[in-house]
This record gives sequence, structure tokens and C-alpha cells, in this order.
Amino acid sequence: MSSLIDRELAVVNVGLDAFADAVAAAGAPVVRVQWSPPADGDPEAVAALARLVADPAVEAANRTAFAAYLEAEPVLEGIALAREAIPGMTERTILHSGPPVAWKDMAGPMQGAVIGAALLEGWAADEAGARALAGRGEIRFAPCHHHDAVGPMAGIVCPSMPVWVVRNARHGNRAYSTLNEGLGKVLRYGANSPEVLDRLRWMADKLAPALAAGLARTGPIELKPLIGRALHMGDEMHNRNVAATGLLLKRLVAGVLRSAIPAHEAAAALEFVVGNDFFFLNPGMAACKCMLDAARGVPGSSMVTTMARNGVEFGIRVSGTGDAWFTAPAPVVDGLFFSGFTRADAARDIGDSAITETAGLGGFAMAAAPAIVQFVGGTPELALANTLEMRHVTVGRNPAFTIPQLGFAGTPAGIDVRKVVDTGIRPVINTGIAHRAPGVGQVGAGLTRAPAACFAKALVALARAA
Amino acid sequence: MSSLIDRELAVVNVGLDAFADAVAAAGAPVVRVQWSPPADGDPEAVAALARLVADPAVEAANRTAFAAYLEAEPVLEGIALAREAIPGMTERTILHSGPPVAWKDMAGPMQGAVIGAALLEGWAADEAGARALAGRGEIRFAPCHHHDAVGPMAGIVCPSMPVWVVRNARHGNRAYSTLNEGLGKVLRYGANSPEVLDRLRWMADKLAPALAAGLARTGPIELKPLIGRALHMGDEMHNRNVAATGLLLKRLVAGVLRSAIPAHEAAAALEFVVGNDFFFLNPGMAACKCMLDAARGVPGSSMVTTMARNGVEFGIRVSGTGDAWFTAPAPVVDGLFFSGFTRADAARDIGDSAITETAGLGGFAMAAAPAIVQFVGGTPELALANTLEMRHVTVGRNPAFTIPQLGFAGTPAGIDVRKVVDTGIRPVINTGIAHRAPGVGQVGAGLTRAPAACFAKALVALARAA
Repeated sequence: MSSLIDRELAVVNVGLDAFADAVAAAGAPVVRVQWSPPADGDPEAVAALARLVADPAVEAANRTAFAAYLEAEPVLEGIALAREAIPGMTERTILHSGPPVAWKDMAGPMQGAVIGAALLEGWAADEAGARALAGRGEIRFAPCHHHDAVGPMAGIVCPSMPVWVVRNARHGNRAYSTLNEGLGKVLRYGANSPEVLDRLRWMADKLAPALAAGLARTGPIELKPLIGRALHMGDEMHNRNVAATGLLLKRLVAGVLRSAIPAHEAAAALEFVVGNDFFFLNPGMAACKCMLDAARGVPGSSMVTTMARNGVEFGIRVSGTGDAWFTAPAPVVDGLFFSGFTRADAARDIGDSAITETAGLGGFAMAAAPAIVQFVGGTPELALANTLEMRHVTVGRNPAFTIPQLGFAGTPAGIDVRKVVDTGIRPVINTGIAHRAPGVGQVGAGLTRAPAACFAKALVALARAA
Repeated sequence: MSSLIDRELAVVNVGLDAFADAVAAAGAPVVRVQWSPPADGDPEAVAALARLVADPAVEAANRTAFAAYLEAEPVLEGIALAREAIPGMTERTILHSGPPVAWKDMAGPMQGAVIGAALLEGWAADEAGARALAGRGEIRFAPCHHHDAVGPMAGIVCPSMPVWVVRNARHGNRAYSTLNEGLGKVLRYGANSPEVLDRLRWMADKLAPALAAGLARTGPIELKPLIGRALHMGDEMHNRNVAATGLLLKRLVAGVLRSAIPAHEAAAALEFVVGNDFFFLNPGMAACKCMLDAARGVPGSSMVTTMARNGVEFGIRVSGTGDAWFTAPAPVVDGLFFSGFTRADAARDIGDSAITETAGLGGFAMAAAPAIVQFVGGTPELALANTLEMRHVTVGRNPAFTIPQLGFAGTPAGIDVRKVVDTGIRPVINTGIAHRAPGVGQVGAGLTRAPAACFAKALVALARAA
């Protein structure tokens, strides 16, 4: 001891700053290492991590799951009505985003969108009637993810809506998503005014048939090469889909024009796509689900196959634990707000669109999309840093989705719950922000992180199942 | 001396490596500073540089010229026939790229394109007839740049060709360029087979009227915001125009469909644009010329207003020296060659497309377009380095053309001949590579540098004029 006291001290402090503060106050140099125990020291999660972190069986299972995700070939096959295409989509069903949630617990924007859907379907004559109908339990609610579907924000799918049909040409599974309405006052952000419903009616009556006719002439569109190309054009496929929308438009234009659709209807349909830089978001999300569903149900795999939020809870599903949801309270998103709105107006994180991050896109591919920071906040350096950081929590890289800015490295993909718990690095998500009240709509866009608790719970469940 | 010999030596060597080699061979550490005298030590150029390098009159003139370039507002106004729109475009005139060149001196691809143009105009029945006609001096040749026009590669404009009309809404000057034919076997690369001429006839008869009708309905399109947006989508506007072409298509689609053009002709026209990722190159070049012409003729200004190559000579024009060309032999381009071709097949650098670099785009904006290295060679790091290096030879930055990758800094623009001579940093150019024989077409794409001699000559002339 005496020699320690006699000599000049140089201290490395791991974890709690209080110890380092004391050393610094005493005038000695101190290096602070940021560290906290995995899963905030929760004994069960720590034990599960210790058991699985280097388990060869988990490694093998993840290789299998990741390979299936990589091999998947999502193809845009057509447009169909939800009631006819989506398995188990009975009348009086409304699908919503995220994990299961009851009507009374739904977030404002989701309730607003449900009311809009009930009006659209003619199940109710006004908002009060729609609320009463839902309150009496006469609408069947289910997550999109339980029906092979994904929906941005409120994620509402009702029977008469047209949906994109994306087929995995490699494994045969299909995924579905609605057609994107645009920004601002739209159903998925909880708006339900007559203009919102009129737009949805026109989309079903005119837009969907025109695009379906065009797609039928063009033939199925392979979505992985299209997404790969859009990444080289500054999209990240979650909050920036301008290039992908342009590429989709290019593929559809001639098909629509050479179809039997009358010229003025073709013009209106294509004009709508031209005017909506987010139009590719929905088929892109379906492509991501299609790829990830191929990785579902691999026993022992710790790879995340779903991240989704319903505006109340954030939920994940993991390949090795099948259909079980692991949830935590949904965070409020930091970001840039539209003029006249602030963080106080923001709903909690909502939507199935985090399927893009789950598939190695969105926040995980942000390095490809430096211009996005003008929409979601941050700096181009942050965009690079986010992609690089996500390498620490993923199974591998997707060589179909390369990032020129990083020497054409593949995007980090296949979130590993073990790595999230071990490192404390939470998956980053680029997302839109809805107003917390029903009927208002989008108020901004920003960045958030998945809650750590989902991953700790999933890891514990995986250890139990092993 | 004795103290110098006794002590350990550390040598900094500026310039010639031979001295450093001797020090290194003797075992002493040596730092090598790369340096060579400006203009290879040419006394007249060095004297001109010494006189003008810090001349407040030149600085003021450059501020005036650069401000005019920045203020210019190029607007895509319409499509017209060359013979009707281009000032001084008499019958039997063929415009070509670069500085003036006589028929007998023209490079292979330019002769090939001239032959194609003579056949297209019906001035000759076959190649021999076309060659004879040109040889007898019965075709009037002039640079595009002498007629407010710009043309990529051979740059051929003949009277019956349709041309884009771009107007500078701020200063009123106009610029013209042909419609882009696509890649491969095309007239501008020197190909002149029946398929090439048939395509040009269809472009004049069907494509131009369809797009003109669409543009008339859409209304004039502001090109600076469009270019600025395309830079955020990975274009650099010389060898990568895929995003800009998509943005132009988006603006034209509805206009074409709502015009009186028959549906199948509209479909064919839009399909052609969809299939040609270089379609925006030509109106983009006209936009660049429009902006730079606003900066012409400012007495004393050392800002470059033109860089252009005719396949034999590389020429520049400078604001303060008016219409005079300063030329040097055109370089052969390093790059990636299409399958079956090598550097031995390459023509010398050719085309007016270096107007993009002159305007702060192309190689100067390469940092915005990392994916382009798959087409022109190099690495994403080189793309960044090229843009950063060009800051040393330019008057300023263009805030309308920002680069997300560089924290949204404006592209370096307004090449200053003084700085090129002073630093020895030659402007970088992204460009296509034509086969050196007539009639073959494009064989690759790559990077090159403007020859230093042009800038030294221009500087001497500027000093004489001052």
C-alpha cells in the first residue's frame, strides 16, 4: 500500500462516474471508460447472455436464419384488395401496426385512423358511431404482422383497401402493404377528414387499377436490385424513398401507358406517384418483411425478425422464439418538427416501418443517405456513425445493399438480441412523427432507438427455450 | 560548417527528388516536399502570375464574374429545331465540340459523326459522298460554343436536329443542346450506321414533339433546383445523370400525358427517357453554359468560362479575354473500358461536356456521387479528394449545389487560371471515352485532367490585356 500512495497515480475508471470524480477532485489524472452492466444488471438477462453469448448452436442457427434472409428474392407481383389477398382478413377486420393492442389502449393517431377506416368501409356514419362500434367490440383488431402485412405509422389496413403483393421468389412467402397516401393529413398519421377518405377512395377506384394494369404489362419487378440502386442514389428506404419511387415510376410508366387505362386516368395515377416521394416506402416495407419472414422460426436463432410499434408499445419478435412479442413502452422520437409543432405534440413511436431497420435499411443504411439529415435532424457524420455502430449488433452484412460512402460495404443486417444486450447499443430507427391527438396527422420526422428491455426479455425467453 | 557536420542532420527537400535521394542514401532522414515551379518555370507565365496573383483588380473582376454565374437562373424553356433556334445556324452548317478544327484535322469520332450528320440531312448519299462534300469545303463547320450551344463528345449539331432551349431568366441569355441519344452506338461517339440515323430521325419526328408538348403543358422547368436535388441523389451531372433524368421525367410525365400526343407515341417517348440514364446530360450542359455565359467578358477576370475538347485540342476561354481560345493537345483519358476495348482504342479527350466541371459540377462535384467510381474508376475516397482538391483552383463555392457528404458545402466553382498555374493543380474531368476510329462509338468512361498549358497561355494573355 505504501508504494501505491507514494507513487503518482494514474486511474482508469470503468463505469460509474462518481469514483472518477473523486479521483479527479484529488488532482490525479483519470481515464473514464463508459460502461454499464448488460441489461442494467438484470440477473436473469445477464445469465441468459452468459449462456448464449458464445453458444455455437446459436451461431449456427443465426447463420441459417441470416442465409435465408440473404437468399430471399422479393418481387413486386401485383396489387389486390386486402379482403381478397391477405390471409385471414375477414370482414370487420382492421389490421394495425405493432404488437397487439386493444381499442381502448390505442394511441391517438391509431384511434383516429381506425375511425377513418370505419367511415371508409361504411361501418359507421360518423366519428361517434365509429367509436361506439369499436367500443362494443364489433371490430376485430389484429397486428398487420399476424397477417403477413406491414403498415407505416398507424398501419391501418381495412378490407376494401388495395394492397401491394410482394412475393419471395426464393421461398414462396408473400407480404402485403397498402399504397402510400403521401405526407401531411393522411390516414396512417391518424387524420380522417373527408379529404383523407376521398383520397383513399380514389386510390382504390382509380390509382390501384391503373398501377395494377401497368404492373401487369411491365411484369413482376425485382425489388432487391431496385433497393440496391436507390441506396446508391441517397435513399435509406425508410424516411427517404425519393430515388426508389423514381425507379418504380420508371418501371411502371410505359406499362400504364400501354394498358387499357384511359389516358387522363393514367395521367392522374402517374401524377400522384410523381407527387409523393414516399410512394415506395410501402412496397419497400413489404419487401423487407418478405425477406425477414424467410428467417423466421429457426430454433435457437437470436436474430430479430420484427421490430414494430403501435404507438404505446415497441415490440420485437425473434427467429428462435417464433411468434412471441417482447415489448416495452414505445419511446418519444427526437427530431425536426414541422412549423407550428413541438415535441409536446408528438405521439410515441408508431408503425411497422422499423421493418426497414430490421432488414438492414433505414437507420442502418443511413450512411448512404446523408441528405436525410435535413429531414430527420443530425449531421452527415451522424449518418455515417449510425451505420458503423449498427455493425456491432448485427449478424452480418447484406451484399445486395451496398453503401458507396463506405467503400461499397454491405449494410449491417440481422439484429442479434445477444449483441444488443451485450453492448447496450440499441438499434437506431429513422421515423416519422405523428401528432398524439387523433385526426391531426404528421408533425415531424426524426431518429429514435429501440428500447433495451425488448431485447433483454427476448434473450431470457430464448435461453429458456434452448 | 563543422557544427553542421557534427550534428545529426534532418533534411527537408523541396522539389527535385535527386537531392533527397542522395541524403537518404547517406542515411539521414529526409522529408520530401513535392514542388515544381509554376508553369514549369516558363518565364512569361511566371511573370504574368507574379503580376496578377494578388492583383486587387483581378479579384474584383472575379467577384463580378462569379456573382453573375451564381445569379444566373437557367430555365428549361422548350425544344426547337436547330435551324430555327440557334443564332447563325445557316443551312450546310455543322456545329462541333471544342475549339475550332478543320475537317481534315478532326478526330475519328468527330469525322464519323459529321458523316452521319451529312447523311441525316440528305446532303450525301453515302460515306464517300459525305467525305467528298466535307473535303471540298461545302460544309461550314463551327464550334457549338460560337453559337450559344454545347454538345457532348463530337457535339455535332446539324440544322434539322431538335435542341433544348435553356434561358437564363436572370440575364436573358440562352443556351442550346441536342437531345441525348443514349449510350453505345450513337452519333456523338462517332457512330453513323442506319440504326443510329433512324434513331435520330425518330427523335426529331416523335420524341422531340412529344417532350415539347409535355414541357409546354408543364411550363418552364427551373434547372438549378433540379440539379441541386440530383446532387443529393448521387449524381455529379457529367457521367452520372440518373437522378436528374428521373427528376426531369417526373416533371414531364403528366404534361406529356395531358397533351394531344397520341398515347402510344407518348409511351414510346417516355420509355426512351426511362431507358436512358444520361438523358439529362444535354439540358444540364446547356444550363451550365447558360450560367457561365453570364460571367463572360468581365475585363480583367481570370475566371474560366469554357473548357471544351474537339478530340485533338483541349481549349479554354476566360472571362477577361473574351472569345479567345487557349489550347493544348487533348489528353487520352484513363478509365474503365467496356468489354473488348482497351486504352489503345481510345480517342483523345473530346466534347463540350467539360462545361459541367467549368460550372462546378462533374468532377468538381464528384464527392456527391461516390457510386460513379463503378463507371469511371477510382474509389469513393478519390471522389471526395477530387472535390476537395478543386477548392484550391476555384473562385468560390456555389450554394445552390451542395454536397451532403461535405456537410452541405457548396461545390467549388469558377476556375481561376491564376490558381491553376500557381498550384499546378489541373481541373479534374469525368468523361466518356470514344473509340478513335470513326463509326464505332463509346468504349468506356474515366477521369482526366485539363492540360496545364491552356491555363498558362490564358494567364499570359490576361496579363497582356491588363
